[in-house]
Amino acid sequence: VKENPLDTLAKLLAKLPGIGEKTGARLAYFLWRAQGKYPEDLARAILEVKEKVTPCPVCGKPATTDPCEICRDTDRDRTIIMVVEEPQDLAAIEKISAYHGTYHVIGGVLSPVAGVGPEDLNIRGLLDRVKATGLKEVILATNPSVEGDATAAFLEEEIGKAAQNISVTRLARGIPVGSKIKYMDPASIEHAVASRTGKLPDTD
Amino acid sequence: VKENPLDTLAKLLAKLPGIGEKTGARLAYFLWRAQGKYPEDLARAILEVKEKVTPCPVCGKPATTDPCEICRDTDRDRTIIMVVEEPQDLAAIEKISAYHGTYHVIGGVLSPVAGVGPEDLNIRGLLDRVKATGLKEVILATNPSVEGDATAAFLEEEIGKAAQNISVTRLARGIPVGSKIKYMDPASIEHAVASRTGKLPDTD
Repeated sequence: VKENPLDTLAKLLAKLPGIGEKTGARLAYFLWRAQGKYPEDLARAILEVKEKVTPCPVCGKPATTDPCEICRDTDRDRTIIMVVEEPQDLAAIEKISAYHGTYHVIGGVLSPVAGVGPEDLNIRGLLDRVKATGLKEVILATNPSVEGDATAAFLEEEIGKAAQNISVTRLARGIPVGSKIKYMDPASIEHAVASRTGKLPDTD
Repeated sequence: VKENPLDTLAKLLAKLPGIGEKTGARLAYFLWRAQGKYPEDLARAILEVKEKVTPCPVCGKPATTDPCEICRDTDRDRTIIMVVEEPQDLAAIEKISAYHGTYHVIGGVLSPVAGVGPEDLNIRGLLDRVKATGLKEVILATNPSVEGDATAAFLEEEIGKAAQNISVTRLARGIPVGSKIKYMDPASIEHAVASRTGKLPDTD
Protein backbone atom coordinates (compact mmCIF):
# COMPACT_ATOMS: atom_id res chain seq x y z
CA VAL A 1 0.00 0.00 0.00
CA LYS A 2 1.38 3.41 -0.95
CA GLU A 3 1.60 5.86 1.94
CA ASN A 4 -1.02 8.58 2.16
CA PRO A 5 0.55 11.89 0.95
CA LEU A 6 -0.73 13.48 4.15
CA ASP A 7 1.40 11.06 6.21
CA THR A 8 4.39 11.68 3.94
CA LEU A 9 4.03 15.43 4.46
CA ALA A 10 3.61 14.99 8.22
CA LYS A 11 6.85 12.99 8.42
CA LEU A 12 8.77 15.56 6.36
CA LEU A 13 7.45 18.44 8.51
CA ALA A 14 8.45 16.49 11.64
CA LYS A 15 12.08 16.72 10.46
CA LEU A 16 12.10 20.50 10.89
CA PRO A 17 13.92 21.61 14.06
CA GLY A 18 11.56 21.87 17.04
CA ILE A 19 8.67 20.22 15.15
CA GLY A 20 7.84 16.75 16.47
CA GLU A 21 5.62 13.98 15.15
CA LYS A 22 2.39 15.43 16.53
CA THR A 23 3.02 18.99 15.36
CA GLY A 24 4.05 17.60 11.97
CA ALA A 25 0.68 15.83 11.67
CA ARG A 26 -1.16 18.97 12.79
CA LEU A 27 0.65 21.20 10.27
CA ALA A 28 0.12 18.69 7.44
CA TYR A 29 -3.60 18.64 8.19
CA PHE A 30 -3.64 22.45 8.32
CA LEU A 31 -1.95 22.66 4.91
CA TRP A 32 -4.40 20.15 3.43
CA ARG A 33 -7.36 22.15 4.73
CA ALA A 34 -5.89 25.56 3.85
CA GLN A 35 -7.96 27.54 1.40
CA GLY A 36 -6.59 29.61 -1.47
CA LYS A 37 -3.06 29.53 -2.81
CA TYR A 38 -1.20 29.58 0.51
CA PRO A 39 0.14 25.99 0.25
CA GLU A 40 1.34 26.59 -3.31
CA ASP A 41 2.95 29.88 -2.25
CA LEU A 42 4.74 28.10 0.59
CA ALA A 43 5.99 25.29 -1.67
CA ARG A 44 7.24 27.82 -4.23
CA ALA A 45 8.96 29.90 -1.53
CA ILE A 46 10.85 26.81 -0.31
CA LEU A 47 12.08 26.12 -3.84
CA GLU A 48 12.94 29.78 -4.51
CA VAL A 49 15.10 30.02 -1.41
CA LYS A 50 17.22 27.11 -2.61
CA GLU A 51 17.38 28.48 -6.16
CA LYS A 52 17.91 32.19 -5.63
CA VAL A 53 19.63 32.71 -2.29
CA THR A 54 23.38 32.14 -1.96
CA PRO A 55 25.82 33.16 0.78
CA CYS A 56 27.38 36.57 0.09
CA PRO A 57 30.98 35.75 -0.96
CA VAL A 58 32.21 38.60 1.24
CA CYS A 59 30.29 38.27 4.50
CA GLY A 60 28.31 35.01 4.25
CA LYS A 61 24.88 36.64 4.65
CA PRO A 62 22.12 34.95 2.61
CA ALA A 63 21.90 37.16 -0.46
CA THR A 64 20.36 37.47 -3.92
CA THR A 65 23.08 39.83 -5.15
CA ASP A 66 26.88 39.48 -5.28
CA PRO A 67 27.99 40.97 -2.97
CA CYS A 68 24.99 41.36 -0.66
CA GLU A 69 23.12 44.66 -0.24
CA ILE A 70 25.06 45.54 2.92
CA CYS A 71 28.51 44.75 1.51
CA ARG A 72 27.76 46.81 -1.64
CA ASP A 73 26.31 49.76 0.32
CA THR A 74 28.89 52.56 0.10
CA ASP A 75 27.32 54.30 3.12
CA ARG A 76 28.37 51.45 5.43
CA ASP A 77 31.60 51.88 7.40
CA ARG A 78 33.94 49.22 6.01
CA THR A 79 36.52 49.77 8.74
CA ILE A 80 34.33 47.79 11.17
CA ILE A 81 33.13 44.19 10.91
CA MET A 82 30.60 42.73 13.34
CA VAL A 83 30.85 38.93 13.53
CA VAL A 84 27.53 37.15 14.17
CA GLU A 85 26.54 33.50 14.35
CA GLU A 86 23.47 33.58 12.11
CA PRO A 87 21.56 35.91 9.77
CA GLN A 88 18.79 36.30 12.38
CA ASP A 89 21.37 37.89 14.72
CA LEU A 90 22.30 40.31 11.92
CA ALA A 91 18.62 41.12 11.41
CA ALA A 92 18.21 41.88 15.13
CA ILE A 93 21.20 44.27 15.04
CA GLU A 94 19.94 45.97 11.86
CA LYS A 95 16.61 46.64 13.57
CA ILE A 96 18.16 49.08 16.03
CA SER A 97 19.54 51.17 13.11
CA ALA A 98 22.48 52.21 15.30
CA TYR A 99 25.21 50.13 13.69
CA HIS A 100 26.56 51.28 10.36
CA GLY A 101 29.53 48.97 9.83
CA THR A 102 29.62 45.67 7.92
CA TYR A 103 29.00 42.10 9.09
CA HIS A 104 30.46 38.64 8.88
CA VAL A 105 28.14 35.65 9.34
CA ILE A 106 30.11 32.61 10.49
CA GLY A 107 27.09 30.30 10.41
CA GLY A 108 27.14 28.83 13.92
CA VAL A 109 29.52 28.24 16.84
CA LEU A 110 32.43 25.93 17.50
CA SER A 111 31.09 22.84 19.25
CA PRO A 112 33.28 19.80 19.89
CA VAL A 113 30.16 17.95 21.11
CA ALA A 114 28.26 18.56 17.86
CA GLY A 115 31.41 18.01 15.79
CA VAL A 116 31.61 21.61 14.56
CA GLY A 117 35.21 22.73 14.04
CA PRO A 118 36.69 25.97 12.61
CA GLU A 119 36.63 24.51 9.08
CA ASP A 120 32.83 24.05 9.34
CA LEU A 121 32.29 27.77 9.92
CA ASN A 122 32.83 30.78 7.64
CA ILE A 123 36.05 31.76 9.47
CA ARG A 124 38.64 31.67 6.69
CA GLY A 125 36.70 34.39 4.85
CA LEU A 126 36.75 36.52 7.99
CA LEU A 127 40.52 36.19 8.38
CA ASP A 128 40.99 37.14 4.70
CA ARG A 129 39.00 40.30 5.35
CA VAL A 130 41.04 41.00 8.49
CA LYS A 131 44.31 40.74 6.53
CA ALA A 132 43.12 43.26 3.93
CA THR A 133 44.10 46.85 4.70
CA GLY A 134 41.96 49.52 6.31
CA LEU A 135 40.15 47.51 8.98
CA LYS A 136 40.02 49.13 12.42
CA GLU A 137 37.70 47.03 14.55
CA VAL A 138 36.10 43.59 14.75
CA ILE A 139 33.12 43.29 17.09
CA LEU A 140 32.62 39.67 18.14
CA ALA A 141 28.83 39.45 18.55
CA THR A 142 28.52 35.72 19.15
CA ASN A 143 25.83 34.75 21.66
CA PRO A 144 26.61 35.03 25.40
CA SER A 145 26.75 31.23 25.79
CA VAL A 146 29.58 28.86 26.66
CA GLU A 147 30.02 27.96 22.99
CA GLY A 148 29.58 31.54 21.80
CA ASP A 149 32.27 32.67 24.23
CA ALA A 150 34.63 29.85 23.22
CA THR A 151 34.12 30.76 19.55
CA ALA A 152 34.82 34.43 20.29
CA ALA A 153 38.01 33.52 22.18
CA PHE A 154 39.16 31.40 19.25
CA LEU A 155 38.39 34.19 16.77
CA GLU A 156 40.18 36.79 18.89
CA GLU A 157 43.33 34.69 18.87
CA GLU A 158 43.15 34.02 15.11
CA ILE A 159 42.51 37.70 14.35
CA GLY A 160 45.52 38.64 16.49
CA LYS A 161 47.69 36.24 14.47
CA ALA A 162 46.33 37.52 11.13
CA ALA A 163 46.74 41.25 11.70
CA GLN A 164 48.07 43.82 14.16
CA ASN A 165 46.45 47.06 15.29
CA ILE A 166 42.90 45.84 14.93
CA SER A 167 40.72 46.46 17.94
CA VAL A 168 38.71 43.36 18.88
CA THR A 169 35.66 44.03 21.05
CA ARG A 170 32.60 42.16 22.35
CA LEU A 171 29.03 43.29 23.05
CA ALA A 172 28.52 44.60 26.60
CA ARG A 173 26.92 42.25 29.10
CA GLY A 174 24.64 43.12 31.94
CA ILE A 175 21.01 43.17 32.90
CA PRO A 176 18.68 43.47 29.90
CA VAL A 177 16.31 46.43 29.70
CA GLY A 178 12.94 45.64 31.27
CA SER A 179 14.26 42.73 33.34
CA LYS A 180 13.79 42.28 37.10
CA ILE A 181 17.05 42.17 39.04
CA LYS A 182 15.50 39.78 41.57
CA TYR A 183 14.91 37.20 38.81
CA MET A 184 18.21 37.64 36.89
CA ASP A 185 20.77 34.86 36.69
CA PRO A 186 23.87 35.42 38.91
CA ALA A 187 26.26 35.54 35.92
CA SER A 188 24.43 38.50 34.37
CA ILE A 189 24.32 40.33 37.70
CA GLU A 190 28.04 39.69 38.13
CA HIS A 191 28.72 41.19 34.68
CA ALA A 192 26.47 44.16 35.41
CA VAL A 193 28.27 44.93 38.66
CA ALA A 194 31.77 44.40 37.24
CA SER A 195 31.03 46.59 34.20
CA ARG A 196 29.12 49.28 36.11
CA THR A 197 29.33 52.68 34.50
CA GLY A 198 29.05 56.35 35.44
CA LYS A 199 27.02 57.02 32.29
CA LEU A 200 23.30 57.23 32.82
CA PRO A 201 21.26 55.23 30.33
CA ASP A 202 19.64 57.14 27.45
CA THR A 203 15.99 57.76 28.23
CA ASP A 204 14.79 59.16 24.92
CA VAL B 1 13.85 46.65 -3.52
CA LYS B 2 12.49 43.13 -3.97
CA GLU B 3 12.17 41.17 -0.73
CA ASN B 4 14.77 38.52 -0.03
CA PRO B 5 13.21 35.07 -0.76
CA LEU B 6 14.40 33.99 2.70
CA ASP B 7 12.24 36.72 4.29
CA THR B 8 9.30 35.76 2.07
CA LEU B 9 9.63 32.13 3.18
CA ALA B 10 9.97 33.17 6.85
CA LYS B 11 6.73 35.18 6.64
CA LEU B 12 4.84 32.31 4.98
CA LEU B 13 6.09 29.80 7.58
CA ALA B 14 5.03 32.22 10.34
CA LYS B 15 1.42 31.82 9.14
CA LEU B 16 1.39 28.14 10.16
CA PRO B 17 -0.52 27.54 13.41
CA GLY B 18 1.78 27.75 16.45
CA ILE B 19 4.72 29.09 14.39
CA GLY B 20 5.51 32.74 15.16
CA GLU B 21 7.77 35.27 13.47
CA LYS B 22 10.98 34.05 15.14
CA THR B 23 10.35 30.35 14.54
CA GLY B 24 9.43 31.18 10.94
CA ALA B 25 12.80 32.89 10.45
CA ARG B 26 14.60 29.97 12.10
CA LEU B 27 12.85 27.37 9.93
CA ALA B 28 13.44 29.39 6.74
CA TYR B 29 17.15 29.54 7.56
CA PHE B 30 17.18 25.81 8.31
CA LEU B 31 15.57 25.07 4.93
CA TRP B 32 18.06 27.31 3.15
CA ARG B 33 20.98 25.53 4.81
CA ALA B 34 19.52 22.03 4.44
CA GLN B 35 21.65 19.67 2.41
CA GLY B 36 20.34 17.18 -0.15
CA LYS B 37 16.86 17.07 -1.57
CA TYR B 38 14.92 17.54 1.68
CA PRO B 39 13.61 21.04 0.82
CA GLU B 40 12.48 19.88 -2.63
CA ASP B 41 10.82 16.80 -1.11
CA LEU B 42 8.98 19.00 1.37
CA ALA B 43 7.79 21.42 -1.34
CA ARG B 44 6.60 18.52 -3.49
CA ALA B 45 4.81 16.88 -0.54
CA ILE B 46 2.90 20.12 0.14
CA LEU B 47 1.75 20.23 -3.49
CA GLU B 48 0.89 16.51 -3.58
CA VAL B 49 -1.34 16.76 -0.54
CA LYS B 50 -3.44 19.43 -2.25
CA GLU B 51 -3.50 17.50 -5.52
CA LYS B 52 -4.03 13.91 -4.42
CA VAL B 53 -5.85 13.92 -1.09
CA THR B 54 -9.61 14.51 -0.93
CA PRO B 55 -12.11 13.89 1.87
CA CYS B 56 -13.64 10.39 1.69
CA PRO B 57 -17.22 10.99 0.46
CA VAL B 58 -18.48 8.51 3.07
CA CYS B 59 -16.63 9.38 6.27
CA GLY B 60 -14.68 12.59 5.54
CA LYS B 61 -11.25 11.08 6.27
CA PRO B 62 -8.44 12.46 4.04
CA ALA B 63 -8.12 9.80 1.36
CA THR B 64 -6.51 8.97 -1.96
CA THR B 65 -9.20 6.40 -2.88
CA ASP B 66 -13.00 6.69 -3.14
CA PRO B 67 -14.17 5.55 -0.65
CA CYS B 68 -11.21 5.57 1.78
CA GLU B 69 -9.32 2.41 2.75
CA ILE B 70 -11.32 2.02 5.97
CA CYS B 71 -14.75 2.52 4.37
CA ARG B 72 -13.91 0.01 1.60
CA ASP B 73 -12.46 -2.57 4.03
CA THR B 74 -15.03 -5.41 4.21
CA ASP B 75 -13.51 -6.61 7.50
CA ARG B 76 -14.67 -3.46 9.32
CA ASP B 77 -17.91 -3.60 11.26
CA ARG B 78 -20.25 -1.23 9.42
CA THR B 79 -22.88 -1.37 12.16
CA ILE B 80 -20.76 1.00 14.29
CA ILE B 81 -19.59 4.53 13.49
CA MET B 82 -17.12 6.39 15.70
CA VAL B 83 -17.41 10.16 15.29
CA VAL B 84 -14.12 12.06 15.69
CA GLU B 85 -13.17 15.71 15.31
CA GLU B 86 -10.04 15.32 13.18
CA PRO B 87 -8.06 12.67 11.27
CA GLN B 88 -5.36 12.74 13.96
CA ASP B 89 -7.97 11.49 16.48
CA LEU B 90 -8.81 8.65 14.08
CA ALA B 91 -5.11 7.82 13.78
CA ALA B 92 -4.78 7.67 17.59
CA ILE B 93 -7.74 5.24 17.81
CA GLU B 94 -6.40 3.10 14.98
CA LYS B 95 -3.09 2.75 16.84
CA ILE B 96 -4.69 0.70 19.64
CA SER B 97 -5.98 -1.85 17.05
CA ALA B 98 -8.96 -2.57 19.33
CA TYR B 99 -11.68 -0.78 17.34
CA HIS B 100 -12.94 -2.47 14.19
CA GLY B 101 -15.92 -0.30 13.24
CA THR B 102 -15.98 2.63 10.83
CA TYR B 103 -15.42 6.36 11.43
CA HIS B 104 -16.92 9.70 10.63
CA VAL B 105 -14.63 12.77 10.67
CA ILE B 106 -16.66 15.93 11.28
CA GLY B 107 -13.65 18.23 10.90
CA GLY B 108 -13.81 20.25 14.12
CA VAL B 109 -16.26 21.26 16.85
CA LEU B 110 -19.21 23.60 17.07
CA SER B 111 -17.95 26.94 18.32
CA PRO B 112 -20.19 30.02 18.42
CA VAL B 113 -17.12 32.09 19.40
CA ALA B 114 -15.14 30.98 16.33
CA GLY B 115 -18.25 31.16 14.15
CA VAL B 116 -18.37 27.40 13.50
CA GLY B 117 -21.95 26.14 13.09
CA PRO B 118 -23.36 22.71 12.15
CA GLU B 119 -23.24 23.60 8.45
CA ASP B 120 -19.46 24.15 8.71
CA LEU B 121 -18.87 20.59 9.91
CA ASN B 122 -19.34 17.25 8.12
CA ILE B 123 -22.59 16.52 10.00
CA ARG B 124 -25.11 16.13 7.18
CA GLY B 125 -23.12 13.18 5.85
CA LEU B 126 -23.22 11.58 9.29
CA LEU B 127 -27.00 11.92 9.54
CA ASP B 128 -27.37 10.40 6.06
CA ARG B 129 -25.37 7.39 7.24
CA VAL B 130 -27.47 7.18 10.41
CA LYS B 131 -30.68 7.08 8.36
CA ALA B 132 -29.42 4.20 6.21
CA THR B 133 -30.39 0.75 7.53
CA GLY B 134 -28.26 -1.60 9.61
CA LEU B 135 -26.52 0.86 11.95
CA LYS B 136 -26.46 -0.20 15.62
CA GLU B 137 -24.19 2.25 17.44
CA VAL B 138 -22.64 5.69 17.12
CA ILE B 139 -19.71 6.40 19.44
CA LEU B 140 -19.27 10.15 19.91
CA ALA B 141 -15.49 10.47 20.36
CA THR B 142 -15.23 14.25 20.35
CA ASN B 143 -12.60 15.65 22.72
CA PRO B 144 -13.47 15.98 26.44
CA SER B 145 -13.65 19.77 26.21
CA VAL B 146 -16.54 22.22 26.64
CA GLU B 147 -16.89 22.52 22.85
CA GLY B 148 -16.39 18.79 22.27
CA ASP B 149 -19.13 18.02 24.81
CA ALA B 150 -21.50 20.60 23.30
CA THR B 151 -20.89 19.13 19.85
CA ALA B 152 -21.57 15.62 21.15
CA ALA B 153 -24.81 16.77 22.80
CA PHE B 154 -25.92 18.38 19.54
CA LEU B 155 -25.07 15.24 17.56
CA GLU B 156 -26.87 12.99 20.04
CA GLU B 157 -30.05 15.01 19.60
CA GLU B 158 -29.79 15.08 15.80
CA ILE B 159 -29.10 11.34 15.64
CA GLY B 160 -32.16 10.71 17.84
CA LYS B 161 -34.29 12.73 15.43
CA ALA B 162 -32.83 10.96 12.37
CA ALA B 163 -33.24 7.36 13.50
CA GLN B 164 -34.60 5.19 16.33
CA ASN B 165 -32.98 2.18 17.98
CA ILE B 166 -29.43 3.40 17.51
CA SER B 167 -27.31 3.30 20.62
CA VAL B 168 -25.34 6.54 21.09
CA THR B 169 -22.32 6.27 23.40
CA ARG B 170 -19.32 8.34 24.47
CA LEU B 171 -15.74 7.41 25.40
CA ALA B 172 -15.27 6.71 29.12
CA ARG B 173 -13.72 9.47 31.22
CA GLY B 174 -11.46 9.13 34.19
CA ILE B 175 -7.84 9.31 35.19
CA PRO B 176 -5.45 8.55 32.33
CA VAL B 177 -3.03 5.65 32.64
CA GLY B 178 0.32 6.76 34.09
CA SER B 179 -1.08 9.94 35.63
CA LYS B 180 -0.68 11.02 39.26
CA ILE B 181 -3.96 11.37 41.12
CA LYS B 182 -2.49 14.16 43.25
CA TYR B 183 -1.91 16.29 40.13
CA MET B 184 -5.17 15.46 38.29
CA ASP B 185 -7.77 18.11 37.60
CA PRO B 186 -10.88 17.87 39.81
CA ALA B 187 -13.25 17.22 36.86
CA SER B 188 -11.34 14.07 35.84
CA ILE B 189 -11.25 12.81 39.43
CA GLU B 190 -14.98 13.45 39.70
CA HIS B 191 -15.59 11.39 36.54
CA ALA B 192 -13.30 8.64 37.76
CA VAL B 193 -15.14 8.36 41.08
CA ALA B 194 -18.63 8.58 39.57
CA SER B 195 -17.80 5.95 36.90
CA ARG B 196 -15.87 3.64 39.25
CA THR B 197 -15.96 0.03 38.20
CA GLY B 198 -15.61 -3.46 39.69
CA LYS B 199 -13.54 -4.55 36.69
CA LEU B 200 -9.81 -4.60 37.30
CA PRO B 201 -7.78 -3.02 34.53
CA ASP B 202 -6.07 -5.31 32.04
CA THR B 203 -2.43 -5.72 32.94
CA ASP B 204 -1.13 -7.55 29.89
